[in-house]
Amino acid sequence: MTKYGLHGKLQATPGNGQQLADILLEASKLVSTAKGFGLYMVSLDQEDKDAVIVTEVWDSKEDHDESLKSEAVRTLIGKAMPLLAEMPKGGQVLEVLNFE
Amino acid sequence: MTKYGLHGKLQATPGNGQQLADILLEASKLVSTAKGFGLYMVSLDQEDKDAVIVTEVWDSKEDHDESLKSEAVRTLIGKAMPLLAEMPKGGQVLEVLNFE
Repeated sequence: MTKYGLHGKLQATPGNGQQLADILLEASKLVSTAKGFGLYMVSLDQEDKDAVIVTEVWDSKEDHDESLKSEAVRTLIGKAMPLLAEMPKGGQVLEVLNFE
Repeated sequence: MTKYGLHGKLQATPGNGQQLADILLEASKLVSTAKGFGLYMVSLDQEDKDAVIVTEVWDSKEDHDESLKSEAVRTLIGKAMPLLAEMPKGGQVLEVLNFE
């Protein structure tokens, strides 16, 4: 069975990439116990340390969407927003073939 | 400690995305026992089923580069090449912050 994946970039304002990444690392811990959770990987782009890359795997789109409804996750999104240089673009939606 | 990540797209010639993905799924099994292996995730782009996305995590760039030297991996690369619509672009190089 395939899984639902997302891969996207969050561009921080200059010098704030690590701070944004820290908030996303908190988010990764929160969602790791959610229904249908597979992966929430936080990376810095090696060519631009203010670009934070998030790669997620969920059993389904519904499980992902549900994870965004938690109060704690919403609080973290609120903390992250002022650090963003631009509104997040959609990113890639993936049909993941081999995530166990 | 951070890890070394790669995220890139391989564009198959029209109609050959699944065949290309099958070869990469074979590769994912081969490399899964290699030194420093973390993740070799094969996905189809939900908007273009001929675009195969590979997301890799390794302990280091050296471990990744070493994995490409295996004879079996080279054979699979040789099988994949004729299915590609274009030469692979470099893709994203990631400093992965939270892959266990």
